[in-house]
Amino acid sequence: MEKVRNRDKLLVSGLRVIHEQGLAGASVRDIAAAAGVPLGSFTNYFASKTAFGLEIIDIYREASHAMTEATLRNEALSPLHRILSYVDTLRDFLAEDGMRNGCLCGNIGAEANAHGEEVRRKIVDAFSADARDVAACLKAALAQKEVSDRIDVDDVAGFFVSSLQGAFLVAKVEQSPEPVNRFKRVFFSMILPPLGAG
Amino acid sequence: MEKVRNRDKLLVSGLRVIHEQGLAGASVRDIAAAAGVPLGSFTNYFASKTAFGLEIIDIYREASHAMTEATLRNEALSPLHRILSYVDTLRDFLAEDGMRNGCLCGNIGAEANAHGEEVRRKIVDAFSADARDVAACLKAALAQKEVSDRIDVDDVAGFFVSSLQGAFLVAKVEQSPEPVNRFKRVFFSMILPPLGAG
Repeated sequence: MEKVRNRDKLLVSGLRVIHEQGLAGASVRDIAAAAGVPLGSFTNYFASKTAFGLEIIDIYREASHAMTEATLRNEALSPLHRILSYVDTLRDFLAEDGMRNGCLCGNIGAEANAHGEEVRRKIVDAFSADARDVAACLKAALAQKEVSDRIDVDDVAGFFVSSLQGAFLVAKVEQSPEPVNRFKRVFFSMILPPLGAG
Repeated sequence: MEKVRNRDKLLVSGLRVIHEQGLAGASVRDIAAAAGVPLGSFTNYFASKTAFGLEIIDIYREASHAMTEATLRNEALSPLHRILSYVDTLRDFLAEDGMRNGCLCGNIGAEANAHGEEVRRKIVDAFSADARDVAACLKAALAQKEVSDRIDVDDVAGFFVSSLQGAFLVAKVEQSPEPVNRFKRVFFSMILPPLGAG
């Protein structure tokens, strides 16, 4: 029972430490200290820091998934508003720590070479899943004539995901939400202007 | 004389190791080994890995500066073509290692919390300098009526820099230039369509 709780403590504290310091930057010693458990406990439960990182990405993605359900997949909103609401929700989540931790998947993606193929694949899958959810919203927006039918859905969805990652990265470095707000202004006025806005 | 050469060897090899592994991921031991110099040599010349990283960013930015001179500041090209050529030149540079190392400034930006304020400021300055160069090109493109006068120059320049960083990040994770090519397709058809293209 104690052991199970130590494993959970490591995952909860590890998520915070890795989000703040990066998977490369956080040491196993930092993670165990933050969890208040002995260093040996970490090695009892996790084969390596990379194996631990894979579980951390899964936990982070579960939180992202909840935000996606409330926004991109929320049929109470119009398709275009689902996408707007997704950006606002992620920005507000990252603003809880002054934007300075950025997106955990983006951070680990930027360190991909340091962690091997399994971590890299997991980040590729995360970005692809986001792009599929955005593409589904764009198709719904087209069907409801909310946006111009001249857009290439897959291109715009992929561009949206990478550009939003870039906005989170610059926001992290600047410790300011402004790059995300600027992304919103430009994207929703020039790429997805609501039809009828002229 | 020998000592000066060891300092240079550390910087040349360190640039490669840090570009591949990240500033957090690369150890001083890795850097000295790659340079083929004794570990003690590193500590003779550099007060810390962070101090070394600051010099590495400067060297990388000098290379970026040369690419900016050949593209964004190249008055032999039309302003819009300067921006296109900038994207192509950076993409081709990063494609030399299959895109997998990404932009060094973006990588270190994603690890900003691990390295302290001086590193963070240097990356903020790098992104701001890029945005100013792009904004100058956009103003020239407006003056020459190459692009619509409905764009907000500073917003579009900032959006360009962050979105390009995002495309480099996703290209790194996917080990493919496609995210950068998609950035180019969407950006230059929807944000900066050449006037007269309809």
